[in-house]
Amino acid sequence: MQENKIVTLLSDFGLRDVYVGVMKGVIAQINPQLRVVDLTHQIPPQNIVAARFSLMNAYPYFPEGTVHVAVVDPGVGSHRKAIAIQLDSGFLVGPDNGLFSGILSQTREIAVVELTNPQYWQTSAPSSTFHGRDIFAPVGAHLASGVPLEELGEKFDPITLVQLALPKTKVTAVDIVGCIQYIDYFGNLITNIAAAEVQGKTWSVVVGNEVLLGSQTYSDGQLGELVALIGSHGWVEIAVNGGSAQSRLQLDWGAAVEIRLMG
Amino acid sequence: MQENKIVTLLSDFGLRDVYVGVMKGVIAQINPQLRVVDLTHQIPPQNIVAARFSLMNAYPYFPEGTVHVAVVDPGVGSHRKAIAIQLDSGFLVGPDNGLFSGILSQTREIAVVELTNPQYWQTSAPSSTFHGRDIFAPVGAHLASGVPLEELGEKFDPITLVQLALPKTKVTAVDIVGCIQYIDYFGNLITNIAAAEVQGKTWSVVVGNEVLLGSQTYSDGQLGELVALIGSHGWVEIAVNGGSAQSRLQLDWGAAVEIRLMG
Amino acid sequence: MQENKIVTLLSDFGLRDVYVGVMKGVIAQINPQLRVVDLTHQIPPQNIVAARFSLMNAYPYFPEGTVHVAVVDPGVGSHRKAIAIQLDSGFLVGPDNGLFSGILSQTREIAVVELTNPQYWQTSAPSSTFHGRDIFAPVGAHLASGVPLEELGEKFDPITLVQLALPKTKVTAVDIVGCIQYIDYFGNLITNIAAAEVQGKTWSVVVGNEVLLGSQTYSDGQLGELVALIGSHGWVEIAVNGGSAQSRLQLDWGAAVEIRLMG
Repeated sequence: MQENKIVTLLSDFGLRDVYVGVMKGVIAQINPQLRVVDLTHQIPPQNIVAARFSLMNAYPYFPEGTVHVAVVDPGVGSHRKAIAIQLDSGFLVGPDNGLFSGILSQTREIAVVELTNPQYWQTSAPSSTFHGRDIFAPVGAHLASGVPLEELGEKFDPITLVQLALPKTKVTAVDIVGCIQYIDYFGNLITNIAAAEVQGKTWSVVVGNEVLLGSQTYSDGQLGELVALIGSHGWVEIAVNGGSAQSRLQLDWGAAVEIRLMG
Repeated sequence: MQENKIVTLLSDFGLRDVYVGVMKGVIAQINPQLRVVDLTHQIPPQNIVAARFSLMNAYPYFPEGTVHVAVVDPGVGSHRKAIAIQLDSGFLVGPDNGLFSGILSQTREIAVVELTNPQYWQTSAPSSTFHGRDIFAPVGAHLASGVPLEELGEKFDPITLVQLALPKTKVTAVDIVGCIQYIDYFGNLITNIAAAEVQGKTWSVVVGNEVLLGSQTYSDGQLGELVALIGSHGWVEIAVNGGSAQSRLQLDWGAAVEIRLMG
Repeated sequence: MQENKIVTLLSDFGLRDVYVGVMKGVIAQINPQLRVVDLTHQIPPQNIVAARFSLMNAYPYFPEGTVHVAVVDPGVGSHRKAIAIQLDSGFLVGPDNGLFSGILSQTREIAVVELTNPQYWQTSAPSSTFHGRDIFAPVGAHLASGVPLEELGEKFDPITLVQLALPKTKVTAVDIVGCIQYIDYFGNLITNIAAAEVQGKTWSVVVGNEVLLGSQTYSDGQLGELVALIGSHGWVEIAVNGGSAQSRLQLDWGAAVEIRLMG
């Protein structure tokens, strides 16, 4: 058995119940040497867009061979596929609902299988409501322990993977129109406009009646002031120094954001 | 020292303070090889019924030899006993207040001791308010490191363990009356009526003015529709597809639930 | 590489985003043998006083050589120093904003460096908003893996460390006036008056119109009754048996508390 491999867990299960603890027990029953790291279990319930964003931002920071198990799964018990994906430097396990489309936009998959081999499940009669425990966590533990992907089920053509259609940015010579793709715990509004679009330029963000000149860091603004900056994920972000931009601007997931380029 | 043994922690301490982190520090001081897994620290404050349910549902999913330390302890500093219990396939450590009665209804204890030997505590003068740090976590770490149960204190007759009296279901040929024994993070209402009572039958749940036909999975209902199903713990459960049954029905812990059997 | 060393993490990042998970990924990339323990990630946003208190109370319970990485960092991206501190029995890593002044009031530092060597960072071009990922977590992982402190940057005189000025208690022969320095998840009000000031004496706490005789434990009061006691951290604490003293008394961080000594 391989030692010290990491299995990460991401879900919308919250931390109040033992659902997450039980997945860790199942993993330890299969291979007590594995390390489990929580990405988050507070994805807003059934919010696949937030899960996609979170996975995409976490993926590059884990060691080669890490297995990411993600369970935000509104379709559990219905006909959506359960899948595992092999990448250059790691593995993804979860429902086929677009959850992994952010990572796949940045890293090409090597192979994809549908999880049809019950030998690697917790039980050959999985519950209809908790595939995290019965299928995804045990499959993740077996992958991290060295079981080859093709053992887990039937390969299929990645072209048929469910895509999550995110609105694209509209870019002209003078402005970029995008949207808010994620709102974090601090109330920072993270747009889908990439750093590369504005780097080396003078730019400002138009939100409501405010025009914010792009700056470097939170504390560039006075305490309580709105600032626009490149966030740590590499996206244009709107923040309040020492406060919540979400509360201030009353904007929600998906709201439009315009950037004006000034050369 | 034994390697890779697991100590689980369950409490109502929340995650805002360092109480849980400190218990992990104490465990690591005793044996840095032990793995610690959080079951949950968000048991509603002093809710022994919720703790009992959570432990009972997590226990079967952990490897042999796992030590479960549970600290939901309204009587800390009073005359309740501090105990450790040896089972077929693991150990339980915590206050004697009925916390473990769910597990003990499914697995027989082998031996029970009162924790009277301060040699295995964090300090021979424990605080009166934080036995999790001073007694339970260190005793759990020692047990997981191979210290025999009888070293920890005096054996006593399990018959004198505090019992948590849960209402029993009333079963007739045509219906079953039970209650809600747990409400999870999603607002799913989990009854105390076991799957075995309804399996292979046609059944429906009566709640308020609604009659819900028993179905297979959350997504059997339309989005936003109430469904009754067998949950992943093996109990009849009332849920809303994509929503919260608790908010919809405004029912609380302990509320009565009736199931009608139709053969 | 050293095995089983512990890196603790404390922050105000919350648990909703992947910020904490990403720091753990960065640590595992550097040394997969390290154990990571969360102290808490729910320090109230930018509350350095709460972080200072939490670190001070957790520090003594961890094994020798533990590295504590703390990221409550309102000044991220501004001119505050990034630092690492070597102590008798462990290491501290984080921003120089007074976060560590509680620990340093109890344990003397051996050496202090400013983190100026990018060789031990995640990237030589750190983001301006997430030094937890880019500087503090990787430096913590390298320290725990045996890199000597002086490798990490320039030593400087500890006398220039930023001090967090907390109000001092005023002690006379008949009373002690202090303040509330921390409010925990249960709503317990923890004062800055040390156990040593009242031990062996008869004492009472005056809050609003209430006079509370110092007692031993939460359950010394009737259910729902206010009690004053020595908390598990070693400070005088005001609590409600089975409830929240904060809700009851409507007191906030920093509120004054008077203790009357009766010999």
